[in-house]
Amino acid sequence: MTLEPTPAPALAPLARILIEPLVRAALLEDLGRAGDITTAAVVPADLEARTALIARQAGVVAGLDLARLAFELIDPRIAFRIERQDGEAVGPGERIAAIAGPARGILTAERTALNFLCHLSGIATATASVVAVLRGHKAQVVCTRKTTPGLRALEKYAVRAGGGGNHRFGLDDAVLIKDNHVAMAGGVREALRRVCAAVGHLVKIEVEVDTLAQLAEAMAEGVDAVLLDNMDPATLAKAVALVGGRALTEASGRITPETAPIIAASGVDLISIGWLTHSAPILDIGLDFEP
Amino acid sequence: MTLEPTPAPALAPLARILIEPLVRAALLEDLGRAGDITTAAVVPADLEARTALIARQAGVVAGLDLARLAFELIDPRIAFRIERQDGEAVGPGERIAAIAGPARGILTAERTALNFLCHLSGIATATASVVAVLRGHKAQVVCTRKTTPGLRALEKYAVRAGGGGNHRFGLDDAVLIKDNHVAMAGGVREALRRVCAAVGHLVKIEVEVDTLAQLAEAMAEGVDAVLLDNMDPATLAKAVALVGGRALTEASGRITPETAPIIAASGVDLISIGWLTHSAPILDIGLDFEP
Amino acid sequence: MTLEPTPAPALAPLARILIEPLVRAALLEDLGRAGDITTAAVVPADLEARTALIARQAGVVAGLDLARLAFELIDPRIAFRIERQDGEAVGPGERIAAIAGPARGILTAERTALNFLCHLSGIATATASVVAVLRGHKAQVVCTRKTTPGLRALEKYAVRAGGGGNHRFGLDDAVLIKDNHVAMAGGVREALRRVCAAVGHLVKIEVEVDTLAQLAEAMAEGVDAVLLDNMDPATLAKAVALVGGRALTEASGRITPETAPIIAASGVDLISIGWLTHSAPILDIGLDFEP
Amino acid sequence: MTLEPTPAPALAPLARILIEPLVRAALLEDLGRAGDITTAAVVPADLEARTALIARQAGVVAGLDLARLAFELIDPRIAFRIERQDGEAVGPGERIAAIAGPARGILTAERTALNFLCHLSGIATATASVVAVLRGHKAQVVCTRKTTPGLRALEKYAVRAGGGGNHRFGLDDAVLIKDNHVAMAGGVREALRRVCAAVGHLVKIEVEVDTLAQLAEAMAEGVDAVLLDNMDPATLAKAVALVGGRALTEASGRITPETAPIIAASGVDLISIGWLTHSAPILDIGLDFEP
Amino acid sequence: MTLEPTPAPALAPLARILIEPLVRAALLEDLGRAGDITTAAVVPADLEARTALIARQAGVVAGLDLARLAFELIDPRIAFRIERQDGEAVGPGERIAAIAGPARGILTAERTALNFLCHLSGIATATASVVAVLRGHKAQVVCTRKTTPGLRALEKYAVRAGGGGNHRFGLDDAVLIKDNHVAMAGGVREALRRVCAAVGHLVKIEVEVDTLAQLAEAMAEGVDAVLLDNMDPATLAKAVALVGGRALTEASGRITPETAPIIAASGVDLISIGWLTHSAPILDIGLDFEP
Amino acid sequence: MTLEPTPAPALAPLARILIEPLVRAALLEDLGRAGDITTAAVVPADLEARTALIARQAGVVAGLDLARLAFELIDPRIAFRIERQDGEAVGPGERIAAIAGPARGILTAERTALNFLCHLSGIATATASVVAVLRGHKAQVVCTRKTTPGLRALEKYAVRAGGGGNHRFGLDDAVLIKDNHVAMAGGVREALRRVCAAVGHLVKIEVEVDTLAQLAEAMAEGVDAVLLDNMDPATLAKAVALVGGRALTEASGRITPETAPIIAASGVDLISIGWLTHSAPILDIGLDFEP
Repeated sequence: MTLEPTPAPALAPLARILIEPLVRAALLEDLGRAGDITTAAVVPADLEARTALIARQAGVVAGLDLARLAFELIDPRIAFRIERQDGEAVGPGERIAAIAGPARGILTAERTALNFLCHLSGIATATASVVAVLRGHKAQVVCTRKTTPGLRALEKYAVRAGGGGNHRFGLDDAVLIKDNHVAMAGGVREALRRVCAAVGHLVKIEVEVDTLAQLAEAMAEGVDAVLLDNMDPATLAKAVALVGGRALTEASGRITPETAPIIAASGVDLISIGWLTHSAPILDIGLDFEP
Repeated sequence: MTLEPTPAPALAPLARILIEPLVRAALLEDLGRAGDITTAAVVPADLEARTALIARQAGVVAGLDLARLAFELIDPRIAFRIERQDGEAVGPGERIAAIAGPARGILTAERTALNFLCHLSGIATATASVVAVLRGHKAQVVCTRKTTPGLRALEKYAVRAGGGGNHRFGLDDAVLIKDNHVAMAGGVREALRRVCAAVGHLVKIEVEVDTLAQLAEAMAEGVDAVLLDNMDPATLAKAVALVGGRALTEASGRITPETAPIIAASGVDLISIGWLTHSAPILDIGLDFEP
Repeated sequence: MTLEPTPAPALAPLARILIEPLVRAALLEDLGRAGDITTAAVVPADLEARTALIARQAGVVAGLDLARLAFELIDPRIAFRIERQDGEAVGPGERIAAIAGPARGILTAERTALNFLCHLSGIATATASVVAVLRGHKAQVVCTRKTTPGLRALEKYAVRAGGGGNHRFGLDDAVLIKDNHVAMAGGVREALRRVCAAVGHLVKIEVEVDTLAQLAEAMAEGVDAVLLDNMDPATLAKAVALVGGRALTEASGRITPETAPIIAASGVDLISIGWLTHSAPILDIGLDFEP
Repeated sequence: MTLEPTPAPALAPLARILIEPLVRAALLEDLGRAGDITTAAVVPADLEARTALIARQAGVVAGLDLARLAFELIDPRIAFRIERQDGEAVGPGERIAAIAGPARGILTAERTALNFLCHLSGIATATASVVAVLRGHKAQVVCTRKTTPGLRALEKYAVRAGGGGNHRFGLDDAVLIKDNHVAMAGGVREALRRVCAAVGHLVKIEVEVDTLAQLAEAMAEGVDAVLLDNMDPATLAKAVALVGGRALTEASGRITPETAPIIAASGVDLISIGWLTHSAPILDIGLDFEP
Repeated sequence: MTLEPTPAPALAPLARILIEPLVRAALLEDLGRAGDITTAAVVPADLEARTALIARQAGVVAGLDLARLAFELIDPRIAFRIERQDGEAVGPGERIAAIAGPARGILTAERTALNFLCHLSGIATATASVVAVLRGHKAQVVCTRKTTPGLRALEKYAVRAGGGGNHRFGLDDAVLIKDNHVAMAGGVREALRRVCAAVGHLVKIEVEVDTLAQLAEAMAEGVDAVLLDNMDPATLAKAVALVGGRALTEASGRITPETAPIIAASGVDLISIGWLTHSAPILDIGLDFEP
Repeated sequence: MTLEPTPAPALAPLARILIEPLVRAALLEDLGRAGDITTAAVVPADLEARTALIARQAGVVAGLDLARLAFELIDPRIAFRIERQDGEAVGPGERIAAIAGPARGILTAERTALNFLCHLSGIATATASVVAVLRGHKAQVVCTRKTTPGLRALEKYAVRAGGGGNHRFGLDDAVLIKDNHVAMAGGVREALRRVCAAVGHLVKIEVEVDTLAQLAEAMAEGVDAVLLDNMDPATLAKAVALVGGRALTEASGRITPETAPIIAASGVDLISIGWLTHSAPILDIGLDFEP
C-alpha cells in the first residue's frame, strides 16, 4: 500500500504556546535531577555534530515542531532544518530533517525528540493507512477521545496530519449523548430535549443510537449527527437512508482497516476509530550522526 | 498462550503525590473550559449508578490507582472497590472493579479513567506475553526510555506489573554509554575512564558494544553491564562467554516475542524491548452500567 | 424592574477541579508571603464566629461555590450553609448564606470570597436585567469572548446563572469568521469553503456579515449561524426574513438594555452583549458578623 | 470633563516576570486545545497585516505591556510600536499603538490583548475621572483590595496610571484593623497593642474607626493612619482636626465622583474607592486593520 | 547559655495554603520518578511503626507544621502528635513529637520532614541565642533578605519562633534606600523625595546612612527608619541621639552574638543580622523508631 | 589552609531548563506583587551601571549560572561576563564577574543573584576545605540527602564544584538500606534479598551496618557499597579489611574536617558528611558598583 494522504488543506501548526509546556515536561522527565550524566562526562563541551532524522520505515511524518523544540530548549544553538513537512509521506531510509550544533545538546535531547516524533508519526501513519483504503468512498476517518492522557491535542493533530478528521476534543466542545445518557434520560427524545434547552447555540449535538427505532426518534427530534454504534453494514445502509442527509452519519465500533471499506460502502459520512490514537504503533525514526 | 505473570515480589503502588498531578491534568484536558456539558444537561444531579470495570479481552491489569483517582477527583463520594489487583491476569468478561455513586461523576470521569487503565494494562499485558515465552530462560525482560512523553513513571510501573524489569528511568540515574558516545570519546576505554572519573559511587555504568572487540575492551576496563546491540544469537553466546559473569549482559535491537526465546538461549541476563512501552496496543476494558 | 430569571433548566455547578486552582491563586494573591498579619495579631486562635452573607442590593446570585471554597481552603472547619442558590434573585438585606467557624479563617478568606461572589453576581444580575426586558421576545441574550483574563469559564457560568446563554468559549470550540477573516479570504464564500474543508464535523460555523449581500452569499454557501453586526432594526428584519430559519441569526454591536427590545423585535434568535462580562458593576454583597 | 492626569512621577513598568504568567494563562484560556481554528483555516500563513489600536472613546491608557506581550507570545515576529504611553489621555479615534506582522498571529492574539488593555484602561480612566474632580483638593484617590481575583497587581498599576495611589496590596504588607477586629479584640486600644507587639518595624498600621471616640482612643495609642468609615462631611472635618496631622486620615464608604469633592473638603489625606477596581467599565479600544 | 526565648505574643502558624506547595515540591524532589525503592522492597505494606522526633542538642523548635505535612502528604493515616510547640526550647534527648502509623510512609517522608525541621529550628535557635545575649537591652534582633532562595517566608517565621523580628519580606512591602540608590539619586534628600512622591501611604520608608551628615539630611527630610551601616559603637550612640526618637534606628554590618551587646548599648532600636538566615547551622533532630 | 580543589574532570553546567524555574521562583519571591518599589522610584529608567561580583573572603565559587540568570530574567540587556569559573578558588577582594547594563535591573536582581551564589559557594568552599585536609588519602568526600528543601540538585552541584562527590540524589536512584530497614526486614541478609528481587539491574545497592557481624552478613550476600556508621577508626580499619575490595566502603557519622583525616586513614573509599549541605555558612560575596 502506498501512503499518499491528500495534503490537508489547512494543516496549521500547533501554536508554540500550546506545545512548549509538554516538551518542557518531557525533557524534565528525562533529565531528572542530575541531567544527562553520561554525555556530560564523555563528550567535550565544544564538540559539534551533524545529524539527520531518518525514517526506518514507510509512513507519514507528524510532530516535527515538537522535535525541534526539544533540541531548542536544551540548546538554542542547535540548528534544525526541516526537509519533509508534517503530513508528508516518507519511505525507509529517507531524510526528514537535518540537525546540527553542539553534540552534547543533540545527544541530550535526542530521545525526547524521537519519543514525540515517533509516537505522533505512528498515529499519522495509521490514519493515512485507513484513509488510503477508503479512497473512492465518501466517508472520512475520524478519531475519538480514546487518547493518551495529556497528549490529546497532539494526537488529534497527528490524525489531521494523516489525512483524518477530528471528533470533539473533550467533554465541553460538543454534545455526545451516549447510550448511558439515553438510558438515564428515559429515551432519545427526552435526552435531546434536555440538551437543546441547556447548551449554547454554537454547540453541535450528536446522539448515539443502537437501533433504527432510536434513530427515527432522534431524527424526529432533530440533531446534528448520529453515532451508529456497532451496526452491521446492512443496518447501516438503512440508517443512512432513514437519515436522508438531514444529519451527519457516523459509524463506530471496533472498525479496522480491513472492515472500513465495507462500512464505508453503506454511505456513512464518518467512520470513527479509537485504535488510531490508543493503539497505533510508533513510526520508527532514528537520529543518525554523520561523519 | 496463558498469561500467568510471576506475582511481582514487590509491586509497590505508586505514591499518590506522584500520580495525582497526572490524573488532574488528564481530567482538565477532557473537561476543557465548560466541563461535561452532555451529562450536566441530561443526567439529574441526584441519580446514583452502579457500574463495573470489565475486561473485554485477556490480559494483565495495571493502573487501577489512576482510575480510582480519576473518579475521586471528580466526586469523592464515588466508591471504587478493587476486585483484581494490578499485576493480576484477567480473562474476557471478568470484573476488575466495582464503581458506584453519583451517576454524573461516574460518566464524567469514565473516559479519563479508562484511558489510563487501558493504556497501562496494555503495556502490562505486552510485557507478560514476553515473560511467558521466556519461562525457563534466565533472561529478564526490561523496558527502555522509549516511552510516551510525560508518562514514563507510569509505563515503567506497568512493565513491573507485567512481570518485567526496569531499565534506567532517565538520563541521570545510571550511565549508558551509547555508540555515539563511544565514537565521540574515541573508543570504549576512554569513554569508560571519563565516566568513572565523573559520576558518583552509587551510579551504575553500562556500555553499548557492537563487536566482541569492543566488548573485550569494556571488560578490560571494568563495567557493570554491557548492552549487546543487534548481535546475532551466535555472537551473543560468545559475548556471554567472554563476559563470564563479570558484568550483566543485555541484548537489544528489535527483539519481538517471536525472537525473544532464541535470544534468551544465548544466556544473556536481560532482554530490553522498546516495543513494550512505545507500541503496545491497549487492553480493552469497558465500564458497564448495571441495572 | 423585578428580576425573575427563568430558572435555568440545567445550571450545573462548575466542577471543583476547574475552580479550585482559581480560588487558590486568589487566596495566595491576597495572603502574600506573610499571610493575614492583622488577624493573626489581634484575633485569638480559638475564637469562633457566626456570620452571614447579606445582599446590599437587589440582584441575582452567582459564585457561591467559589466563596465556599475560599473559606474551606483557609480552614476546612468553617461551615458554609447556602440559603439561596446560584441563579436565584435576592433583595436588599436578604441572607444568602450562613458561615460559621474559627473567626481567624473567616476574616482571612472574607475578601477573596466576596471578590468572586460580588463580581460574578454582578454579571448574573446584568444578564438577568436584559433577560427581563426581553420577556415576550424570542431572542436569547448571550455573552461574548470579551471577558476578564483568566476568569472566562466563571463569567460564562455567571451569564447562565442570570438566564443568558453562552457564545463560544474560545478560539477553538466553534468557528466565527469575522470581517477581517472575510477580507483576507477574499469574500464570504471563499472563507466558508476554506473553513468547511478544515474543521471537524462537530464544529459549528458562524459568519459575521455587514450587508444583506454578504448575508445572501453566506446563505447560498450554507452556515450554522450568522452574526448580523451593527445593523439597524429594519435591516435586521430583512436579514431575518432572508435567512428564513435556515440558520441562527445573532444581532450584535453595542446593544444595551434600552435598545435590546427594539433589536429583538426584528425576530433575531440571539442578541450578544459584551457589556455583560466586561463592564457589569459588582452586586454589592457583604459579610455580617452576628453577635 | 477633560482627563489630564498628573503624569505619575514614577509610573514604572511592571516587571515582565510578573506579567508574563498572566498573559500566557489568558492566551491559553482563549486558545483552548485546538487553537484559533478559524484563522488557521481561512488566513494564509504568509499573509502580513498592518493594524492599529484605536481608542473608541476618551480615556486614559493602561496595560500596553500586556497587550504587546500577548502578540509577542503568539508570534515574536509581530512588531508592536507604542504611540501613547500608559498613563496618557487619549481621545476618541486616536491611535495608541501600531501593530504589524503575520496576520494569523495578530488575529489570534487580538482578543486577549484587548481584554487586558480595555479592562486596565477602564480602571485608569475611572481613576483619572476622580482625580480630575479633586483637583485643588489635598486628598489623594486610592484603591482597595476589592479587585478582580488574580489581577490585583495589574489593577493597582492601572490605578497608578490614572493618577491614583495604592492602598495595601494584600493581607500581609500593612495592618488594617477593621471593625470586626476591633470588636474581637475588645476595643481599639487593645487591638493596637496586640498589633504593635506582633508585627515588624517596617509595617504600617491603620485602624478603622466609626466614631470620634474610637478615633480619640486610636490617637492616644498612636497609629500611622486612620480609616474614617462612612462619616458625614461634618464629622470627617472634626476627625481631621482631632488627628491634627499625627496620622494620615482616609475617608471611605461608597464615595462616588459626585460626592468625592464634598468629602475632600473635610481635609482628609486620602479617599479610598472600591468602585475603581471592582466596577469600572472598560475603555473601548479596537484593533483596526489598515489596507 | 540557656535559651529561654520570650514566648512570642503571636507566633501565628503559617497558613497551610502557603506551605503545602513547598512541602509537596520537597517530597517530589526526594521521590524522583520511582519513589522510595528501598522501603517498597524491604518493608511490608501493613507494618506499623511508632516513632518520636528527638532533639540531639539544645535549641528552639520551628517548622513542626511542615514536618507534619510531609508525613500527611505521603500517607494521611500517619498520626503526628506535637509535644513541643514551635518557639519552645528543647534540651538534648527531649521529645518533640510522636509519629505513628504505616512504617513505609514514615520512612519515606522522614528525610524531607527532618530537612525542613532541622533547618528552621537551626534558624530559630540562632535567633534565640542572640535574643538571649541582648536580654536587658532595648534592641530587637531582626533578619534580612539574605535568605535561602524559595524559603523566605519559612525562614522569617523561624526567626519569629526564635524571638526575633522580621525586616521587610521583599522588594515591594517597604522601601529601603540603600547606598547605591542614594548615589544614583544624587543624595539622601533627593532619594527620599522621589520615594515619597511614588509609594503608597501604607508603605514605610527606611534609608541607609553611612555618616552622621547623611543621617542629619535624612532626619531633615523625614523618614520612618534609618539603617546605620557599619558604624562603630560611639558613632552609633551619636546617631541615636541625633535621631532623638523621631525614627527607628537599626544597626547592621556583620554583627555577631559577641558584638551584639556592645552594639545594643548604643541604644539602637534594632539590630539586623543576615547570618541568622544565611549561615545558621541546623539544629540536630532525629527520628527514633520505638520498639 | 589553601583551597586548591582538584579541577573537577567534568564539572558540567546544570541545564538551563533545570535551573530556570528555581531562579524564576526566587525572583518572584523577592518581587512580591509590586516589584522593586525603591528602585522604581529612585533610579531613572535610562541609567546604566557597571558593577563587579567581589569575593569578601577566600573560597570556591559555585552558582554563577544562577546568578547570571537572575539578572537576565529581570533584564536581558544586562551583560554578565564571568571572570572566574565555578569550581575555582578565589581570594578576598578578587573579582568573580563583571555585570553591566541598566541600573534598575541590576539593583532589582542583585539580592536574588547573591543569595544563590553565596549559598552555593559556601557549600563548595566547605567541601573544598575537607578535600584539602584529605589530600594524600584515598577517601573521597561525598554529600548526603540532608539538603535544603527544593535546592538539592543545586547543592549537589556545589559539592562537585568543591571537589567532592555525590551520594544518591533521592529515594529512587539507588538503594540505601538503613538501620530501620534492616530491623523491619529481620536482618541484613533478608533485606538484601528483598531488594535484589525488586529493583532494576541498573540500581546500586548500599547497606548500612553498625557492626562487623552485620558487615560479614552483607558481604556474604553481596552488595555494591557498605555504609559504616559511627564506627571508630580501629573498627573501620577492620571493616575495610573484611570487605577486601569487594564493595565500596563509606564512613559516616558526624565527621568534621578535624576528624576526617583520622577516618580516612582507615582506608575507606568514601566519607559522607551531611554538614556540607545542611550547615555550611555562606561564602561572602558582594556586588560593587563601579564609578
